Amino acid sequence: MSATRTTSIDGPFAMHRGGVLDSPTIAYETWGTLGGDGENAVLLFTGLSPSAHAASSAEDPAAGWWEEMIGSGLPIDTDRYFVICINSLGSCFGSTGPASIDPATGARYRTDFPVLTLEDVAEGGYAVVKALGLTKLHTVIGCSMGGMSALGFCVRHPELSEGFISISAATRALPFSIAVRSLQREMIRRDPQWQGGDYDPADPPIGGQRLARKLGMITYRSAEEWEHRFGRERISVESRSGDMFSGDFAIESYLEAQANRFIGQFDANCYLYLSRASDLFDFAEHGGSLESGFGMLNLSRALVIGVRTDFLFPIHQQQELADGLSRVVPETEFVRLDCIKGHDSFLVEMDAFRPVISRFFQR
Amino acid sequence: MSATRTTSIDGPFAMHRGGVLDSPTIAYETWGTLGGDGENAVLLFTGLSPSAHAASSAEDPAAGWWEEMIGSGLPIDTDRYFVICINSLGSCFGSTGPASIDPATGARYRTDFPVLTLEDVAEGGYAVVKALGLTKLHTVIGCSMGGMSALGFCVRHPELSEGFISISAATRALPFSIAVRSLQREMIRRDPQWQGGDYDPADPPIGGQRLARKLGMITYRSAEEWEHRFGRERISVESRSGDMFSGDFAIESYLEAQANRFIGQFDANCYLYLSRASDLFDFAEHGGSLESGFGMLNLSRALVIGVRTDFLFPIHQQQELADGLSRVVPETEFVRLDCIKGHDSFLVEMDAFRPVISRFFQR
Repeated sequence: MSATRTTSIDGPFAMHRGGVLDSPTIAYETWGTLGGDGENAVLLFTGLSPSAHAASSAEDPAAGWWEEMIGSGLPIDTDRYFVICINSLGSCFGSTGPASIDPATGARYRTDFPVLTLEDVAEGGYAVVKALGLTKLHTVIGCSMGGMSALGFCVRHPELSEGFISISAATRALPFSIAVRSLQREMIRRDPQWQGGDYDPADPPIGGQRLARKLGMITYRSAEEWEHRFGRERISVESRSGDMFSGDFAIESYLEAQANRFIGQFDANCYLYLSRASDLFDFAEHGGSLESGFGMLNLSRALVIGVRTDFLFPIHQQQELADGLSRVVPETEFVRLDCIKGHDSFLVEMDAFRPVISRFFQR
Repeated sequence: MSATRTTSIDGPFAMHRGGVLDSPTIAYETWGTLGGDGENAVLLFTGLSPSAHAASSAEDPAAGWWEEMIGSGLPIDTDRYFVICINSLGSCFGSTGPASIDPATGARYRTDFPVLTLEDVAEGGYAVVKALGLTKLHTVIGCSMGGMSALGFCVRHPELSEGFISISAATRALPFSIAVRSLQREMIRRDPQWQGGDYDPADPPIGGQRLARKLGMITYRSAEEWEHRFGRERISVESRSGDMFSGDFAIESYLEAQANRFIGQFDANCYLYLSRASDLFDFAEHGGSLESGFGMLNLSRALVIGVRTDFLFPIHQQQELADGLSRVVPETEFVRLDCIKGHDSFLVEMDAFRPVISRFFQR
């Protein structure tokens, strides 16, 4: 059973770069009990692909994507905090996105969905905050793309949150990350089954999506991890599925398994929109420069966590974000973790992340 | 007019991992004048995609791929040295490869070509050395994949060369590099126009080749270069060819232009074979360990050049190669260059490379 709730935004929702959605829905999930007007509320924005199901609950016992972080006695302690996780606008896990039905036409939006930005994702989160009657938040937190959505939320609603945590995010994407994502999108769009976005949902552009997921994995982890983990290990002759050009090395078999796991879970058009939104986000657009963007914030505490081996959101970008925050936020902490699993470390290196997050919330 | 010569290997040519080619051809180009039995001969192995046309000459005045390195008065001075550049076996610029006609069938080899290794490429080079009557070489030199071919040459023919230069190469590929190349091959093979390798040469799998080239460029250069060069620059509205998902940022337009330049120049099947050969090469297979491989060499001088920002053949691999060589070669030099153009630096950062190569050959 799902623990996901939804809220509907009444009437037209004007998108940040133009276009309007008619009464979009935002899906979210909550854990813990709300105290007061939101002084114990923690608002969580996700990376590109997760749903709002960040942790299990009595209602939905399936493990969530941040299962070891959110719960009773865990770093984001649900005995103490009321946690809300948002499914991004534009995604396909309950929130309105390109795979949703456009009420005006009765058909899926597909590529008629307006250009999506992370400011729109932030406003989706704000709609949930309003629907829950909150006028205050303890902390806004975001991982990867969600860190940029969270930053967008804080700059547009500076009155709401006391705290901010950015995990493996940045103020804006570098050309390297844009290049990688642009190529991932091209892989999907070159798959003949994409059909200009008009694919049959039962017959999506799986070939392109597999390629994009593999390139994703290459940039989500690190060369260092793989050198330790796989080296030049070959898979056994018996279990080989490869041919002359592939499948011989353990790393190839690993990527194949990762692609298989992901496929069918995420709508291709939704992926295209959220991927482009990650390219487009630029905190400097708020006020005209990074400095003015930071000046618009009204936070009391900020925590920036980055990972040495992350090359999608590299450590010097984490430093830039922390430096900018430290000039305007009374208490700013920057934690540089020495994990070897790259950008994905916040999902898999829990022993490194737990104490840092825990310390923030135990204050 | 082409200055490329060819030599034919008489009779059956047994491939390193099995299979036989019937009298394959190796294309090469030379500059300068041979002195003695080869004491001034420099044998050059190329990266995956270049032809044997490394530099211009009276016969072929078109600029070569290492134009600023080879010539009268240049670091590899053709007034003094006799330079031979080999077109790799398996390539498509005169040497026998998957795009060549199999004399047994009268049709192109395509995927019936046997598994290609860099040891086979090295033997292609050896065939030219024999055909030219050389019993001695001053130096064997290789860039990128060619560095591994050159290492394969030196370990199989230790009696021939006094000197060895490796540029941005390694003893073997890391899982990260294998992952990248495996994905590039999959991009081509998933293009319906590849047709299992049986594409019409006039209608090749251009879509897949474009994707593979773009991923190539992402790994040949560096995030640091692109941050300096492109930042978040957008292209002008007038010159935009993009749409909602692409083409807006300068980096996207750059990758598009690079893909356009490459397409049509290189046969897709040849690319697949040479790419896989780069994965398969493992110097430790010579003697059973890296240490025994190095022990089989008989060099007097070695030079290893690596670049700090290279993440396809990262600097710690250059260090590993230099360390191994230094244990068995009387004079080994390791030069770590601080260029920001990544793996491709040896093609574009000539001011950094020229003095190092020059010093080696002026001795």
